Amino acid sequence: MRSRYFASDPARKRVAVELYESVEDLPLICPHGHVDPRLFADPDYQFGSPVDLLIIPDHYIFRMLYSQGISLEALGIPALDGESTQGDHRKIWQLVCDHWHLFRATPTGIWIRDELADVFGINLKITSANAGAIYDEIAAKLKSEAFRPRALYERFNIEALATTDAATDRLRHHQAILDSGWPGRIIPTFRPDAVIAIDQEDWAQNIELLSAVSGIAIGDYGGYIQALEERREHFKTMGATTTDHAALTAYTEALNPAEADAIFQRALKGEASAKDAARFTGHMLIEMARMSSEDGLVMQLHVGSYRNHNPAVHARFGRDMGADIPIRSEFTKNLKALLDRFGNQPEMTLILFNLDETTYSRELAPLAGHYPILRLGPPWWFFDSWLGMTRFLDDVVETAGIYNTAGFNDDTRAYPSIPARHDVWRRVCANWLAGQQVRGFIDEEDAREMIRALAYDLAKQTYRLDG
Amino acid sequence: MRSRYFASDPARKRVAVELYESVEDLPLICPHGHVDPRLFADPDYQFGSPVDLLIIPDHYIFRMLYSQGISLEALGIPALDGESTQGDHRKIWQLVCDHWHLFRATPTGIWIRDELADVFGINLKITSANAGAIYDEIAAKLKSEAFRPRALYERFNIEALATTDAATDRLRHHQAILDSGWPGRIIPTFRPDAVIAIDQEDWAQNIELLSAVSGIAIGDYGGYIQALEERREHFKTMGATTTDHAALTAYTEALNPAEADAIFQRALKGEASAKDAARFTGHMLIEMARMSSEDGLVMQLHVGSYRNHNPAVHARFGRDMGADIPIRSEFTKNLKALLDRFGNQPEMTLILFNLDETTYSRELAPLAGHYPILRLGPPWWFFDSWLGMTRFLDDVVETAGIYNTAGFNDDTRAYPSIPARHDVWRRVCANWLAGQQVRGFIDEEDAREMIRALAYDLAKQTYRLDG
Amino acid sequence: MRSRYFASDPARKRVAVELYESVEDLPLICPHGHVDPRLFADPDYQFGSPVDLLIIPDHYIFRMLYSQGISLEALGIPALDGESTQGDHRKIWQLVCDHWHLFRATPTGIWIRDELADVFGINLKITSANAGAIYDEIAAKLKSEAFRPRALYERFNIEALATTDAATDRLRHHQAILDSGWPGRIIPTFRPDAVIAIDQEDWAQNIELLSAVSGIAIGDYGGYIQALEERREHFKTMGATTTDHAALTAYTEALNPAEADAIFQRALKGEASAKDAARFTGHMLIEMARMSSEDGLVMQLHVGSYRNHNPAVHARFGRDMGADIPIRSEFTKNLKALLDRFGNQPEMTLILFNLDETTYSRELAPLAGHYPILRLGPPWWFFDSWLGMTRFLDDVVETAGIYNTAGFNDDTRAYPSIPARHDVWRRVCANWLAGQQVRGFIDEEDAREMIRALAYDLAKQTYRLDG
Repeated sequence: MRSRYFASDPARKRVAVELYESVEDLPLICPHGHVDPRLFADPDYQFGSPVDLLIIPDHYIFRMLYSQGISLEALGIPALDGESTQGDHRKIWQLVCDHWHLFRATPTGIWIRDELADVFGINLKITSANAGAIYDEIAAKLKSEAFRPRALYERFNIEALATTDAATDRLRHHQAILDSGWPGRIIPTFRPDAVIAIDQEDWAQNIELLSAVSGIAIGDYGGYIQALEERREHFKTMGATTTDHAALTAYTEALNPAEADAIFQRALKGEASAKDAARFTGHMLIEMARMSSEDGLVMQLHVGSYRNHNPAVHARFGRDMGADIPIRSEFTKNLKALLDRFGNQPEMTLILFNLDETTYSRELAPLAGHYPILRLGPPWWFFDSWLGMTRFLDDVVETAGIYNTAGFNDDTRAYPSIPARHDVWRRVCANWLAGQQVRGFIDEEDAREMIRALAYDLAKQTYRLDG
Repeated sequence: MRSRYFASDPARKRVAVELYESVEDLPLICPHGHVDPRLFADPDYQFGSPVDLLIIPDHYIFRMLYSQGISLEALGIPALDGESTQGDHRKIWQLVCDHWHLFRATPTGIWIRDELADVFGINLKITSANAGAIYDEIAAKLKSEAFRPRALYERFNIEALATTDAATDRLRHHQAILDSGWPGRIIPTFRPDAVIAIDQEDWAQNIELLSAVSGIAIGDYGGYIQALEERREHFKTMGATTTDHAALTAYTEALNPAEADAIFQRALKGEASAKDAARFTGHMLIEMARMSSEDGLVMQLHVGSYRNHNPAVHARFGRDMGADIPIRSEFTKNLKALLDRFGNQPEMTLILFNLDETTYSRELAPLAGHYPILRLGPPWWFFDSWLGMTRFLDDVVETAGIYNTAGFNDDTRAYPSIPARHDVWRRVCANWLAGQQVRGFIDEEDAREMIRALAYDLAKQTYRLDG
Repeated sequence: MRSRYFASDPARKRVAVELYESVEDLPLICPHGHVDPRLFADPDYQFGSPVDLLIIPDHYIFRMLYSQGISLEALGIPALDGESTQGDHRKIWQLVCDHWHLFRATPTGIWIRDELADVFGINLKITSANAGAIYDEIAAKLKSEAFRPRALYERFNIEALATTDAATDRLRHHQAILDSGWPGRIIPTFRPDAVIAIDQEDWAQNIELLSAVSGIAIGDYGGYIQALEERREHFKTMGATTTDHAALTAYTEALNPAEADAIFQRALKGEASAKDAARFTGHMLIEMARMSSEDGLVMQLHVGSYRNHNPAVHARFGRDMGADIPIRSEFTKNLKALLDRFGNQPEMTLILFNLDETTYSRELAPLAGHYPILRLGPPWWFFDSWLGMTRFLDDVVETAGIYNTAGFNDDTRAYPSIPARHDVWRRVCANWLAGQQVRGFIDEEDAREMIRALAYDLAKQTYRLDG
């Protein structure tokens, strides 16, 4: 249905459809996400079963089923100790379909339905009765040439897609893509969290790896900084335009070099405290901004997720298992040390993301509506949803305008869901702008230019993909 | 008006009416509230005057009048010192009606209007001019057999109604109801706050009472726990399916038995500190979850109300006098100690309520969308309102779905307002789902099943009233 | 367009137009704002260029342009060191118009468009192409007699306008207005922040000034209080009905006189700590409430703005340069010390404003719905916007009703934007009440009385301008 999801008021719906149609054929800009570059390195890459594709990697899906008493084992999620979990993917699929009502009125429910219809051509409702037929249809399609990742890239009309890669990644898949001569634009993103979070178990190991990959000895803070600069340079060479940083809070603090080195040395000895870790992270955010001011990489900051909140699930299944829970966030005070140094540089860009919607109108929009360095990322994670996006526009635009936002990014590892995700964003924007237009806040010319900016231009410009 | 309160858009309103009509005749499930069991113990119980029924016990009403400079004395609220307050109930009623404009666009305004119309058959607008006529009509009705609580129970089509009872309550009214052979289902709820809050003045007295009622000597923490377990067992025997707990925050902390006993001993000596009290409450929430894991009682937790905020009103009139003010709440960190122990048990249920709407999308929905133990209670207190409920659905459903909610409960001591309160909830849900349906997020089949779940099934199942 | 900004649903829009028309001709009550009294002291006062009038004093406008990389120098903002900035106002105007798309869907965009149309009779869209023509038209109009401030006062149908004035202000402009015999009602507001904030650089200087102006020696806390009381009395003589107070938080604490004097003495010696400053501010809020209980001045409290967040902009351009960023606020605990003393006095009024919308439903509405002293100010600053006002009504009215609000105030220094600002408020209220009426929450009689209260009566009564 062309007008799906739009307001039911006829006047507004008509305008929404027109605005939507003016952008629906624009290419997709995917400047931040978690698609595995391996998909594009091998021209013949095949997805596995429908469950491999749609269920096992999607923590949005299995967290909801888990919340209703279905074990992760029954969903085929591999346990770390290798204990057997359900291996019959048809059974898993049936179990999921038997509980699909849980996803009514959720973004997952919408994405999967739209994806089945628009990518797989399947218009059956997901029910117990239809489970088998849907499974077979997906499985058959996945075997065809048309469902190779590179073929889908063309079909999805993607213009550029950024992956997210550890600072220590040698980017061999990206190199293979470049070497293959395939014209798709798959670019890396420099994500150094694992070499910055000194309180993570594997930090020391990652520092060794950083040293090995960069070819720089890391005996002190100076060497560490040098190695990071080398890696950023390498990522740039491979096409990167951005870095990405995750932190529990937006706290920033400028340490002097001696303090930074003292903490670094304690960390190398395994003696860093929790406070050391928080201060070091806060310092490194400033240091990363400093590097961005020099090398021109756009900086992204994602804050506010309490990772691995459920120790039992973490111990048995590892990270990213649907047990990351948001906490309250603060930016006005926390980000000040960074902004004091780099906030007024219009040639720099820092894109902010978080999971506490109360910050939208109170802190983020006022900050972005003043500091040249700041742009607001689209609603993240749980808020990548119809109402979440609508609240974002409602809360942000009056204060910051749309031109201090960074457009959309899908932030997904679920590659075939990308068109559905962009479609929801474009529809939300069309619907929101239609509301503004029919009520006379903006005129048609404004609305047309704004929908194009939100659907395409802002992401491309903010992430410097127009170079 | 059948379509009252629904969106004015004709397409959506039509669907809302259909959805509402599909559930309006379902029985009322009242799994949490504060109706006095005495009403049902005596088959001939009579309400007093209209003011006894509608004004004096309703802090929603007198707080608003008080905020505009009308004294509680003038409203007939009894002072603790027995000083005379207004005793002429017709005068009080006139005063209330003279100021009824204060309740325009408030839930109280809607409940009372709907209650007058649907329970008392009075369709006059509440105004100064109509005050006398309305008073007389209510007073006359209250004298009739049809307005005895048991008769209203039938007429209201209530299927089950839970009261809220101190852990030390001997449940004699409940026993009388059972003994009477009347088929209404009035069940108790185990609420141990008064024997857990060691910083309350009457705690020691309540412990003595607990010992007396349970027949267990309480000289140390072990005896205390044993007495609580005995009481829970007794409540179960009397039909209870749930416990209820109030705390200022959701803080939980597992003390070891020695620590727990040390604090308990200090409390017995009247030497416990404020910190002791907070830690002990946090520990006892975990202990109550432990008991629930054993005896199967569903656990409810209400947090975030700063009780008796106004010392002058508290000193003169006592507790629950409209001066309870919400504070900010936090769950992600506070509830972790409890969830670490019991969060993954699908056979348990912990229902969360609070007064800080910012937690809905940020913490509660993500938590409930992961942990098997959690369900979200309906919007509480100030948010038991058209817009409060709508915001709850808007903020929660996209992340947690509706099946991680606990449906509705009226949480009221105002017995004759119960149908009006359920009616508002059912209308909110019908209106919200109609919006989802006409815009294509869900189809008609989904909407029909969801409205039934929200209106009836979820409350019945979550509170284990289907046994 | 008569129905501009109203909901597009025809039934609701029709009612909104009717409600709006019932109040559009009511006089404007402007009980709080920052218009310079100089405008009215000189009957021949002329505004400068269009840029002097519309751009240079409006931090809403230049902060947004600054956020997109346009320097404040290029916008003609004078630097403190007197370094030259752009002096060609036609060039500045062109630059602003070239970037006017930034203000799409923002309140500034709406105010300026409505102001151009309704005050200047200019219906051209602000674009690069139209910049020159608009500039010329405004410039020509500003030269005419009809655009003298006193003439606009009549044309705007203002009934009373309060300025905001330092406690040390001798109110000479106000005296000149009174002496001139002009019948406009321009009254001062007592704002003592600069003599209370002991941590501000110029505090000691302001105390000297306070002593000079009041004619009272200020050697200790007693003299200080006496001088403040004298000034309040003088402001009252000059027509003031209110005081205004700004603080970072709503923290209140009653110090005993010895503590207060000790901090005051430390402050005089320049030895007060940050904690001293916070406690002293918290104490003085209570002291100001005490004085209000005696002299009857209505008290306003604005909290939650982190002033001068950007040190580079502050150092170069001074205060109020678009770099004030909101922080989280708290009232339930912070305001308790003040409310314990004065909360129950119905003859007093304390009006609360803040920049953290989460407090609306959680704290402010419950507090205002109980304490006789409290009224809620309209949405402030970033929230003086269509959606900000709508959220305020949505979040507040169900709990506090409309009669615990203070109606509207424009809070602006941009004098010619006043009608546009009041018009937006009246339209928001008409639209909101129309939604309530067509859905049956209130009837037409209620809606009519409520729109009048919100548009006119509540501001007049709350600010005691009906005396």
